[in-house]
Order: sequence, then C-alpha cells, then structure tokens
Amino acid sequence: MAKKSKFKITPIGGLGEIGKNMTLFEQDGEGFIIDCGIMFPANDMHGVDYIIPDFRWLQERADIRLHGVCFTHGHEDHIGAVSHLVKAFPGVPLYATPLTAGLLQVKLKNARLLKTSKLNKFTAGDKLKIGPFSLESFHVCHSIPDCVGYGINTPYGIVVHTGDYKFDNTPVHGRKTDYARLAGFAQRGVALLLADSTNADKAGWTESEAVIDAALDKVFRKSRGRIMVATFASLMSRVQQVVNAAQKHKRKICITGYTMSEYAKIARKLGYLDVDDSMLIKIDQARELPPHKVVFMVTGSQGEPSAVLGKLASGRHRQLDVRKGDTIIFSSHPIPGNEEMVYRTINRLIQRGADVIYDPIEAVHVSGHACQEEMRLMLNLTQPRHLVPVHGEIRHLHLHARLAADNGMREDSITIVENGTTVELGKNGITVGERQPGGYVFVDGSSVGDIGRAVIRDREILAQDGFVLVSATVDNRSGELIESPRIVSRGFVYLKDSEEFLSQIRETAVQVLNRSRHLNGKRQNLVEESVGKLIYSETKRRPMIFSIVNEV
Amino acid sequence: MAKKSKFKITPIGGLGEIGKNMTLFEQDGEGFIIDCGIMFPANDMHGVDYIIPDFRWLQERADIRLHGVCFTHGHEDHIGAVSHLVKAFPGVPLYATPLTAGLLQVKLKNARLLKTSKLNKFTAGDKLKIGPFSLESFHVCHSIPDCVGYGINTPYGIVVHTGDYKFDNTPVHGRKTDYARLAGFAQRGVALLLADSTNADKAGWTESEAVIDAALDKVFRKSRGRIMVATFASLMSRVQQVVNAAQKHKRKICITGYTMSEYAKIARKLGYLDVDDSMLIKIDQARELPPHKVVFMVTGSQGEPSAVLGKLASGRHRQLDVRKGDTIIFSSHPIPGNEEMVYRTINRLIQRGADVIYDPIEAVHVSGHACQEEMRLMLNLTQPRHLVPVHGEIRHLHLHARLAADNGMREDSITIVENGTTVELGKNGITVGERQPGGYVFVDGSSVGDIGRAVIRDREILAQDGFVLVSATVDNRSGELIESPRIVSRGFVYLKDSEEFLSQIRETAVQVLNRSRHLNGKRQNLVEESVGKLIYSETKRRPMIFSIVNEV
Repeated sequence: MAKKSKFKITPIGGLGEIGKNMTLFEQDGEGFIIDCGIMFPANDMHGVDYIIPDFRWLQERADIRLHGVCFTHGHEDHIGAVSHLVKAFPGVPLYATPLTAGLLQVKLKNARLLKTSKLNKFTAGDKLKIGPFSLESFHVCHSIPDCVGYGINTPYGIVVHTGDYKFDNTPVHGRKTDYARLAGFAQRGVALLLADSTNADKAGWTESEAVIDAALDKVFRKSRGRIMVATFASLMSRVQQVVNAAQKHKRKICITGYTMSEYAKIARKLGYLDVDDSMLIKIDQARELPPHKVVFMVTGSQGEPSAVLGKLASGRHRQLDVRKGDTIIFSSHPIPGNEEMVYRTINRLIQRGADVIYDPIEAVHVSGHACQEEMRLMLNLTQPRHLVPVHGEIRHLHLHARLAADNGMREDSITIVENGTTVELGKNGITVGERQPGGYVFVDGSSVGDIGRAVIRDREILAQDGFVLVSATVDNRSGELIESPRIVSRGFVYLKDSEEFLSQIRETAVQVLNRSRHLNGKRQNLVEESVGKLIYSETKRRPMIFSIVNEV
Repeated sequence: MAKKSKFKITPIGGLGEIGKNMTLFEQDGEGFIIDCGIMFPANDMHGVDYIIPDFRWLQERADIRLHGVCFTHGHEDHIGAVSHLVKAFPGVPLYATPLTAGLLQVKLKNARLLKTSKLNKFTAGDKLKIGPFSLESFHVCHSIPDCVGYGINTPYGIVVHTGDYKFDNTPVHGRKTDYARLAGFAQRGVALLLADSTNADKAGWTESEAVIDAALDKVFRKSRGRIMVATFASLMSRVQQVVNAAQKHKRKICITGYTMSEYAKIARKLGYLDVDDSMLIKIDQARELPPHKVVFMVTGSQGEPSAVLGKLASGRHRQLDVRKGDTIIFSSHPIPGNEEMVYRTINRLIQRGADVIYDPIEAVHVSGHACQEEMRLMLNLTQPRHLVPVHGEIRHLHLHARLAADNGMREDSITIVENGTTVELGKNGITVGERQPGGYVFVDGSSVGDIGRAVIRDREILAQDGFVLVSATVDNRSGELIESPRIVSRGFVYLKDSEEFLSQIRETAVQVLNRSRHLNGKRQNLVEESVGKLIYSETKRRPMIFSIVNEV
C-alpha cells in the first residue's frame, strides 16, 4: 500500500440520524464497507416502508474495487439493507459473527439471494483480511449478543470503529466489552476514533442489563395472572432474562410473533439463547395452562398495530386476548416518533383490564448505548488523535464533540461530518474531503427509490384535505355541456352529509363551463380555479382540485 | 336544594386523554361547567386543526338549566373551546380570574363574541354563587399565573376540583398553592376529590420553577452571542424569569411571535409580568444591538414549522436568522407526539451554527403538574372520602388510583371513569351513572364536527399510497371507446418517471372497456378492479382507484 495516499472514510448513512448505518473505507482504489442498515420513516414520510442508504454513487464509481462488507451486529439499522447491497454489488463477500450471520442468512433467504451470497463467519476478536486491508474485530456489549467493533490498520495508525456499544460490566451473556483490545490499540496508536453518539445527551453510565433481572423478579413475584413481556424481536438477551425469571417462578414460556420466533430459533441453534425444550410451549398449550403458569414473549413494543401486542390491544388477535389479571411488561423504550402509538397501546391494554408495567414504573428496560461517562471511558481507553462522532442525530454528534473537547481533546482534532462527506486521514492528520450524495432512498412496496420528496409532498396535501375532481363532457364544436358534471372526492368532506355542498360545486362548474364555451384548452383551469375558490371560502380548506373536460 | 337528589358530575373531556378539559356538575335540573378546552390532534388525525369536547348531547337536554362556566386557568386545554361553548349556550355567564379572563377576552374578540358574552372576574380565593350552587375558589400553582381549583358545596360534603396544579413552594410569582383552604375543606368534610393525574407515572416532587433561575443564569453567564428562549406562548412566569435573567446580565428583551406578544401585553397590563419599558425592544432595534446585549423570546418550542423557531430553523423568517454564536434555549418539554418535530428543529438549528440547550443538558424547564409525592400530599391535605382521578390518559388515571390505594384509600372509594360517564354522589357515596357520548368533535378549517372517522380513514389511505383515477368516454349505443382514457394520479408514483407504467394502466383500461361493450353500469367497477390488480402486482401498493365511464 502506497504510504502517501490518503485513507478515506465516507459515512453513507448513520451520521445526522439514528438508523441506516453504513460507512465506506478506501485507499488507492481498494475499499470495504462496515454495515448496511435501514432506517424507519418519520411520521411525515407517508407510505414509506423503510429507508436505505443512498449508495448509488458508489455503484457508479469505476475507480474502486470493493473487497467486502463487515457487519458489527444483527440489528435492522446495521444489517437491514443487506439484500439491496448484495443486489447492487453481486458476489461481494460478507463478514459477520455467528449470530449476526444467522440473522443475515434469514434476510438473504427471504430475498432469494442466499445461494449467490458469500457469507463468511468469524468470532469476535478474530483478525480479518479484507483484500489489502487488515482488520481486528473486538467484542462490545450492546442489546444483542455477538456484537463487534473494528480496529482498522492504516499507514497512519489504527482507525477504531466502535459500532453500537456500552460498557456493561455484568452483561447477560457474560462477555464484556474488550477493554484489553481497546487499550492495546491505544499503545499502538489510534489515529482516529469513530464512536457511537446515540446517548450523548444522557449523563452518567448506562445501567447494566443485570438491573432488569431484579425488576423482572419483582413483577413476576407479584403477578397472579398471565405475564406478557414485549420487547424488540432481536433482543435475545432480554428473552434470556425472561426465560430465567420464568424458570425461577415456575412458568412456561411461549414465544409469539413470526420474527421473534425465527430469531429465537437461530439464537438457540447457535447457543445464544439457553432454554430447555420443556420450558417452551406453543400458544395452544399456553391457553390450556393456569394463568400463573405462563409467560408470553410478544412483539409490538413500539406500538406497531400489526404486531402481537397491537392486535391484543385492539382485540384483533386470533388466538389470544387480554384479560383482567394479566400483567404486561414493556421491556423497551419508545423510539422517538413512536411515543404516541406506544402510549395509545398501553392505554388500550389497561382499558382491557391488564396491569401494564413500563419504564417509569419499574426499571424493565435499559439502553444498549453508552452514556456520557462511557463515552469518556472510550476516549480514555483508546486515546485517539482524532475523533469523528458517528451514529446519532446532529445534536448527538455535537454533544459528543463537546464532551471530547471537555475531556481534553483539541477542538481541531474533532471533526463533525454528515452522511456523504469524506474524511481523509493522512500523515498530517485529518481533512474533510469531497461531498457525495448522502440522502434517503425510500422503499415503498416493491419499488426502491422511485418515491421522492415530490410524491411525499402530494401525499401530505392529500392527507390534510383530500381531493375533489370534477369531470365534464362537452360538445367539441359548440362547447356545450352534454351532461351534468360528475364529482369524485375523498378525504375532503363526508359525502353523504354534503349533498348540498356538492351540488354547489357542480353548479359552479356548470356556470364556468357555460361562460367559457369558446375558450378551448383553458376550461379545465377555469373550473379548477373557481371550484377551489368556492371550497376555500366555504370551508377554509385546500383539497387538491382537478378537473377533466372531455370534448366529444 | 332537595336533600335526596344526587349531585351528578359528568366529565365531557379530559378523562382518558390529555386535553379538552370540561366537566358538567348538576343537581335537580340545575347545572354549571368547569373549563372548556381544546385538544391537539394526534399525528394520525390528518388535517384536523384541533378537537373540542362533544357537548352536543348537553345542548339537546331540555331538562337542565346551565347557570355558568367557571375556568381554572388560561391554557388552551382549559379555555380553548370557549367560543364554541358560547355559541352553543348563548348568554351563559363565564367566571374567571383576571389573567384567565384577559385571555378569554382575546378568544371571544377574535370570534366576534365579546360583546354578547357575560364575562365575570373574580380573585383567587373568592366565593362564587353560580345559580343555586356555592363554590369556593382556591389558588394553585401551575405553569401560568392566576390558576384556581374549586371547592363545591353539596348536600353530601364538599367536592374539590384541583384543576391543573403543583405544590411549588418557591413559585416565580410568590403565591403558593392554598394549603390552608385545602386543609379547611378537609375539616368540613370532602366527599369527593377530582384531582389532576397528568404526572402520575413520575416519582417524587416536581421541581420548583426556582431551579430554572439557576439554569438560566448559568447559560446567560456563558453566552457571548445572542440568546433565544423558546417556550409556550402562555408561560408568562417563564417570560418573567427570562426578563429577570436579562436584567441581571444587561440584555434587552425582544418578545416575538403574535400570540406571545399578545399574551405578554395582557399579562403586563394586569400586573402578571413585571418588565420595565426600557427593557423591551422590537425586532428592528434588536438587530441593531451587539449580540451579547439581546435576548429574544420566541414561540415554536413544540417544533411547529410555522412558529418563529420553526421558521428560523428552516431559514424562512423574514426578519431574523440563526448564526454561529447564538444560544437557543428550549424552555419546554416535547408534548408526546411532538418529539420528532422538536428534535428535527433542534438538529436544524445546530446545523445553522447555534448552541442549543434543552432539558437533559440543563434544567431549563420544569413540569407544571404534580408528581406522585404531591398527589399524596393533595390526598392527605383534603382527606377525601372518594376519589375520581381526572386530567390524564388511561394509564395516568389508573396509576393515580393505585397511588391513592397505596396511600390508604379503600379501593371501592376510588372510581375511574372516562369521558361521558356520569358519577353520582349521594348520601351513600358514589355510584356510576349513565353514559353520554364522550367523543371527539374535529375542527377542520371553518367546519366543526363534519369531519368524522370515515374521512380521516380516507385521508390515511391517500397519505399511504395516493390515488389513481381513469376517465373514459364511450359511445352510449355501441359502447365503444371514443378517445383514449385519461389518467389523473397524485401521491402514487412520480408521474414524470412513470410514463411507461401509466401507459400500461391505460392499456389495461382499454382492454377491459373493449371486452365489456354491452355491460353497461358494470364497466366502471371492472376497470377499477383490473387497474387495482395491475397496480398491486407491479408495485405492491394499494392507492385508491377510481374510474369514470362517460356515456355520450
């Protein structure tokens, strides 16, 4: 590797936002990627299923050879876009720890890409050779087992990418964040630290998953009826904690929901979920047992209406219902934007008679990300010459930067960039390089990227006030109306109660058409204008207005 | 007043939700109301401007004489629907403390109802005679000055309605919650307590507004540039705190935004905002001063795009901009459902170079509602025989009930009801009475109540996938197409990039119409069906599909 060329790092996703993490590393026309996740749409991105990183510019670059994609862990915001990636870069080798690889397999299988994918497994702590690059993986604690970060050897020192991490000293699965390896990097010289910023506005130290054991024990001890625990489908250490509590309190466990069942199967097979066959029961069996002998693991902790808990809350689950005496534990925090749906679900479950336990009531969830003291520890362990805060909204990146400065780093060695902006590491330190497109690619139904801001804007207008369409047929010579105009409208007013107003709209259209017999080509606009004015003056609303004038 | 008839209390709004508070009190065909507020729509109530309580059933009741409406304080969720109320019950007397009355006046004036309204002012602590009813107002602390609760004398003991309250021992305006009066009620015998449940899931004691002084002082001391403080327009005690900090740090204050300026004017006039003329400046003057000599009060702390801060964040404010060196303080917490917009605004302000201070960073906001210890204190001060938790979502009402039970109240003396359910107080205690409609009345544009769930559902479908309309003209005898069908579509695909797919839709419609020449009356449905199938199979989306077949 030529010593003088720069080592370039381009965040493609995950900077300035929570989600769709993806970073490109390159030098001298050789490159590799870490992670390729999805992001869930904001409330005003109407109809969008999910968002993937915009790597179209990378596909178009002929000057780079991509040697592999390394994953840090199996959460959707780090692996969720893998099938899109494999389609864009056929045959690119994938590297992951066993659990992450298991979850990647499910995704690739569903996308019918498993056979053509090159999936390589390694163990946390292994060294990896990705083309000309030499990487050292190191174990980190987070809210899913088998997470790693990477130390990347460059001519200018080591680049450390933490992935999502926390320093849990009593993690459920026993394995701690690899302090020794991080300290070892420091001894050899860390040129640049790319570190998780998600909790940069939270003081102190994220509590250990161990505190949840005590909270679960307390709730299990008090509950006389059935218990349901809701959490993220992938949070296998939480499932393990519930299994342990169930065992202690002599309850059987029923894992419901397709995704969570699938994940649990993989985790058991790979040894990340320790539960005896005799403990696990199916829904039919669970319904036969006395209430105090069962615990259900359910999905829907974010208030998703189509998940198990959402169906239970609205009485739409085919096999289960919620009864007085049930205790439902939300072992999760609402992701920003989901609060309204989460609390609505909680309220409905209480209305159905359940006792609902969520975080302010008992400590039934802890974050998977480092808080401020851990962020300081990461800086002190790795002693980086430069910092680029990653994984977080703008406010988190800036707070992380300020924390590092307060911790003694020189301000000019901290660089805040957003998606698409290349950071270049050379012998004189860091410079900010070119800007690539770092935007959103919306996935809606089966199409990727063909829904843009314009379509979303139209959906927003339709969502606000609906539409009104007036269709008229006129004689192409005389210009006279042949029949009374028809009106199609949705989302504007309740049509059955608005006959009179619809007649008024029709009458306005007739008047305009009668006045404009010889204004061929302009009549459509004239109708739209007059109808729009009428509607605004009568209702103070602005539905989308269309008119069709057929000339026959 | 006949001793044997029951005293009835019907919550019309505010139970099972945060917002649109309104309660009816009645006995023997005589009645009065406390509060009449609005609620802001959830994210999925598309196009709804706000929601008012459903009091249409009360308008239809011929058996009741309404003697007045008493207000607890001047927040929107307690006074916001006053003009709708006055229109429904012309001439009904209104009762409020001076600041609340001032804010009511603004609303009534805007609705051109001031002249015909009977607005009566009283001082916190006054006794009121409302028809045959005798009420005693008592001062409470909250996040706006001049708040009261009411003790209502009934043949069965006193009914205490707390309104929104907290027990602030060092409030900005000096006046504490009226401990003596509450204790006095207890001595005379409280039959029923209706108490605020908003913070029932928060342990401890809500911090005093006094802690904000220290936080503001710290931020003012450090800031070298301009300072902007965002809070609710009605939070006049916060404006007072900012005025005090500005005075200490020798800055002038500029109050921006129409509503906040109006509120400040009223508060100054009535003596609730103490600020010297020489301190107050207009935007033009503020722009001339050095940055470290100015503080702006701005609206938009909930992320509202059209408020001052929203415009600053997107660079759309006509007179102000955000620059490097500015410090922006969010002296507010996001209302659930607004988190996404609030954090988006914060991120954009940081991108523009501002230093943004919000709650986890400094204690620049405290809640206006009682936490659990204060709720216990309220119970212990008033010693009620019965409790009906009010003001809160279902989860808050239930937690309040549990807290009261843990505090020693018998479970059967605690009654949880939702909007519309009458609670009857008699000599043998409380019973649950009839159920009235307790729903939502949506206000959208200038219309009240004509938008229902059906219209909102249509808007949701349009928001998800838009619509496609196919219009065709056929010969009414032969059934043959006269011209190629036209397509109108929005919110479905980006039309300019989808010419080919639109042709495919048109072609499908032509085929169906050609095959169905003699199926008059059914052709519209056939086109919709085929086009819908084509669209779903090609895109996995379900836009609304319409067809018009004109026969000429």
